[in-house]
Amino acid sequence: MSAPVVVVVEPKTPGNVGTIARAMKNFGLTDLKLVDPPELGRDSEAYGFAGQAREDVLPNHDVVTFEEVVERYHTVGFTAITNESQAKHVRFPFRTPRELAESLDGLDADTALVFERERIGLTNEELARLDEICSIPANTDYPVLNLGQAATIALYELRELTVEETQLPDVSHHRAEEVDVERFYDHFDDYLALTGYPDEKRAKTGRMVRRILGRAHPTGREINTLHGLLRRAEHHAEESRLTD
Amino acid sequence: MSAPVVVVVEPKTPGNVGTIARAMKNFGLTDLKLVDPPELGRDSEAYGFAGQAREDVLPNHDVVTFEEVVERYHTVGFTAITNESQAKHVRFPFRTPRELAESLDGLDADTALVFERERIGLTNEELARLDEICSIPANTDYPVLNLGQAATIALYELRELTVEETQLPDVSHHRAEEVDVERFYDHFDDYLALTGYPDEKRAKTGRMVRRILGRAHPTGREINTLHGLLRRAEHHAEESRLTD
Repeated sequence: MSAPVVVVVEPKTPGNVGTIARAMKNFGLTDLKLVDPPELGRDSEAYGFAGQAREDVLPNHDVVTFEEVVERYHTVGFTAITNESQAKHVRFPFRTPRELAESLDGLDADTALVFERERIGLTNEELARLDEICSIPANTDYPVLNLGQAATIALYELRELTVEETQLPDVSHHRAEEVDVERFYDHFDDYLALTGYPDEKRAKTGRMVRRILGRAHPTGREINTLHGLLRRAEHHAEESRLTD
Repeated sequence: MSAPVVVVVEPKTPGNVGTIARAMKNFGLTDLKLVDPPELGRDSEAYGFAGQAREDVLPNHDVVTFEEVVERYHTVGFTAITNESQAKHVRFPFRTPRELAESLDGLDADTALVFERERIGLTNEELARLDEICSIPANTDYPVLNLGQAATIALYELRELTVEETQLPDVSHHRAEEVDVERFYDHFDDYLALTGYPDEKRAKTGRMVRRILGRAHPTGREINTLHGLLRRAEHHAEESRLTD
């Protein structure tokens, strides 16, 4: 997929535009298009909220018309309020952001994510002209997200299509090898034997330790440190026996 | 799981507190605790940004100390910057928000989600006292999210543990029954036959229609409408034959 463009229709609050620009930069997007935006001066909240996106995403935005977006892109409209009934096609069916990410994966189309103006949202006439509807699941008592927060969640969910490399190291490399974890369980059992732990409880306590570490997914480093702790305890146990 | 509490350590910007309060209400959380917060007057941005959370989550916040949180709760610290190396335990290993949601599911513990102050974050001393580390995957060039946006994503990811009912209707109820979709394919094939569509292309065109609808997951209503369109076309085809 080519990276989607982000379109905001008639945003009223410069701060929301800045928030969206920042989320775009956080999640690897660059192309911001605004329909009839407010004044976005360098001293506005747009720049105040944009973080490092003030250097590129925000100042490089284009001003476009809704018509241009509908004509040129495969459009996804975001709305908090969907139709309950399948008889109304304007807001139904819809996808959640996660379903949208799955459906856009591998799609070769110029896609525009279209966010609605604050408070009044997109009109039914506007939504009817968009190709897909996306809605963020939220609490039924108060499902209406702030514009900037809704866009942040949407871009977060699409990150696997847009972020080439995250800041997080690859954790899977760091999990201890299973053989090393098993060796620790053996070591622990030896330790129990050495200290005269009652035979009838040894297997049970060993299982408990296996369950704890089994849930925690220890790193190789952590297993090494645990071995070290056991060796110290063994040493003390032996010393104590010698001095008995 | 009992619903987690949300802790913000020394927030500097009232607007961020309001954003977090709104996200809490959007995703079914109520208990907001602040360590050394700024002034949060009724005319502050905290109330300006809180949406309907200005009625409950925000005014009902507690002021607490970091010590109290550490003593009372199972704590999850959120940070953008993790350690690269497993030799440093302060920020490693970490979970992503989605992994956190899975690990907290079914857990019976009082959990606190601890968000760090803007810019300087949580100190290593503070992080060392928390039980788990969580980090949001973002673009390696600019992984630092705004406080309010980070909390919004975290609470969104935990929604399956905290939101009892979303605003979205249950889509699965609305998908057309497979037998009705199959009947449409038969109907479409009959239509092709009726209109003298070349035999050698009929199966191929039928497969194409099957592929389109197979990807679109039509609703029962949509299938009914498509049947109606076909019947009209059949009618016209018959009329046209009569007048030939």
